[in-house]
Amino acid sequence: MATPIVDVHTHVYPPKYVELLKSRSEVPYIRTFDSDLTARLIILPREDDPSTPSTARGRPIGPEYFDIAKKIAFMDQHGIDISVISQANPWLDFLSASEATDAAVEVNDDINNMCEKYPGRLFAFGTLPVKAGAEACVREIKRLKGLKWMRGVVLGTGGMGQGLDDPKMECVYTTLEEAELPVFLHPHYGLPSEVYGPRAGEYGHVLPLSLGFPIETTIAVTRMIVSGVFDRHLALTLLLAHSGGTLPFLAGRLESCILHDAHLKKLGKLEKRRDIWDILKKNILLDAVVYSGVGVRAAVEASGEDRLLFGTDHPFFPPLEDEDTHQEWLSVATNYAAINKVFEGDKEKGGAVLGGNALRLLKLQAE
Amino acid sequence: MATPIVDVHTHVYPPKYVELLKSRSEVPYIRTFDSDLTARLIILPREDDPSTPSTARGRPIGPEYFDIAKKIAFMDQHGIDISVISQANPWLDFLSASEATDAAVEVNDDINNMCEKYPGRLFAFGTLPVKAGAEACVREIKRLKGLKWMRGVVLGTGGMGQGLDDPKMECVYTTLEEAELPVFLHPHYGLPSEVYGPRAGEYGHVLPLSLGFPIETTIAVTRMIVSGVFDRHLALTLLLAHSGGTLPFLAGRLESCILHDAHLKKLGKLEKRRDIWDILKKNILLDAVVYSGVGVRAAVEASGEDRLLFGTDHPFFPPLEDEDTHQEWLSVATNYAAINKVFEGDKEKGGAVLGGNALRLLKLQAE
Repeated sequence: MATPIVDVHTHVYPPKYVELLKSRSEVPYIRTFDSDLTARLIILPREDDPSTPSTARGRPIGPEYFDIAKKIAFMDQHGIDISVISQANPWLDFLSASEATDAAVEVNDDINNMCEKYPGRLFAFGTLPVKAGAEACVREIKRLKGLKWMRGVVLGTGGMGQGLDDPKMECVYTTLEEAELPVFLHPHYGLPSEVYGPRAGEYGHVLPLSLGFPIETTIAVTRMIVSGVFDRHLALTLLLAHSGGTLPFLAGRLESCILHDAHLKKLGKLEKRRDIWDILKKNILLDAVVYSGVGVRAAVEASGEDRLLFGTDHPFFPPLEDEDTHQEWLSVATNYAAINKVFEGDKEKGGAVLGGNALRLLKLQAE
Repeated sequence: MATPIVDVHTHVYPPKYVELLKSRSEVPYIRTFDSDLTARLIILPREDDPSTPSTARGRPIGPEYFDIAKKIAFMDQHGIDISVISQANPWLDFLSASEATDAAVEVNDDINNMCEKYPGRLFAFGTLPVKAGAEACVREIKRLKGLKWMRGVVLGTGGMGQGLDDPKMECVYTTLEEAELPVFLHPHYGLPSEVYGPRAGEYGHVLPLSLGFPIETTIAVTRMIVSGVFDRHLALTLLLAHSGGTLPFLAGRLESCILHDAHLKKLGKLEKRRDIWDILKKNILLDAVVYSGVGVRAAVEASGEDRLLFGTDHPFFPPLEDEDTHQEWLSVATNYAAINKVFEGDKEKGGAVLGGNALRLLKLQAE
């Protein structure tokens, strides 16, 4: 029997979360504008400019975001046997401490119930009540460990508000190590819009999506590395979205900059540290959502072919031509083609990336 | 005879420029603080914080920055036959229109004279008077074409102040195409410091140097690509510092984001455009200053082994242990090792990257 194909990067807004977004009137929220019959999802402050026509604000949100049957249909259409679903950004990052704890329980139970409807075809990464603080996160991680279909947690780069190099995250990392649950690290906040220059508006969403997202991830994980998180948490596992942002390509420069930094040397930080390559090969998993053979090969060389995992980013990046809803998605086909190109002569390794690695590393057997 | 080794990424502050920096009292400037006998170079506003001890502001600047004999000694020590020197950042970006034109002539003549002292061992990229506007730049490009050792121009990502996707740059690009002179695109401004989070100060210069610089370059060239510069200027050649920042790794995602952008499609921008891979293989040259085999291979796959060029970034990244001035620099050894690793079985291709490509593409024969 061929190894199943597993998608580890695929998002949902569970129904409880959609209700929450509909009840809100500031970012993030879902709204059906009078001028438009389609509900629109606005998740970033810069998407909420009142001078923008309402039909250009955010993005249309349809059942592909919350109806799990649509996810299964997409999987069937693209030959995907198993999906490890995660709540899409911005998770519960925006909720106050008093709201976050209950919301996390509701949302995670909701997602676990989605998985229960299609036994063995869906697993999930749970969401943490980050603004409720470390103790609340620790409690939810322990609760997630007991939910049948949960296999890790999804985290944004902000952590509890001060980034993932925040000392307050330490006990969260310890709990994740003990629970043997990986973190799926995913971007949301991008870069300050000034970096795209005065003509960025002419380029649609291209600059923030193609550069801002992966760069945000790269900065976040680099801050973890240089602050010594992986020196203290040897068993912590991070699955990085979009093949690490651009960590595989910049790892060499990062290592060199560390080794040439007089300030770090003076502080004694160059002794007894683990180098980037060791961390990449023992603590980092990469999804294969990188849209090129160049990227797939760099990811393989950086972390190893046994640590790269197929993904789609569904329901984002649907085909622009939506008259034919039965067509294969270009975004998915591009990622399949990149993997096939790199592993053309080696079906076994290709199969590991397409599903075998996810099965093994995320323990995707129904118990 | 073996192909010579050519360093295309190696900087100088010509004496005229050092004089200029010494005469200034705001960033960028050179100053010898009372508490320290070493002159220090402060080139970024964030390095000029009065609360920082004077010995931690900027970086020490010694003769390796302006004494060309030191460059030759470094070349001899590292087996480098030819260097294509360029003024280090921030070039003349900070000079007003009235100052820039004369300064460009002085600085470029100064650099050309440095090359003249070691005939055949040094060539150069000239500096443009960007703040003096397009016409002044066009005049200086035409003048540079007549200087014996000039083989291109170095440009920062700011262009004339509005970035390289500025329509005012169009006639500069046309002039460069006609003169058959490449642009060496180099970062200086990095990213807004807020992206590095509240603990960035603990990490020395690591985050801005390892991430900010390459990301700045990537954003700049991406803005050129999406604004259609390479659709209009088919013969424009860009040599990208640090192997393109991270363009090789993100090219696939960039292409996918463009093809999925509803706004660009609505504007008809998806028709008749050149795709990223075509631009990478025809208009982009990459230096091999990427400090890893992963990076070198990605650069080769993106642009071709006939378009990758060895570089050192001298005099930046000297060894931290400076008691032994005769040791090989780790930063240089790392880049040599990365190239040797990738081209281990193919001396001819390795030789092309180490020097043959530079000889051919930059026409490095003394005439």
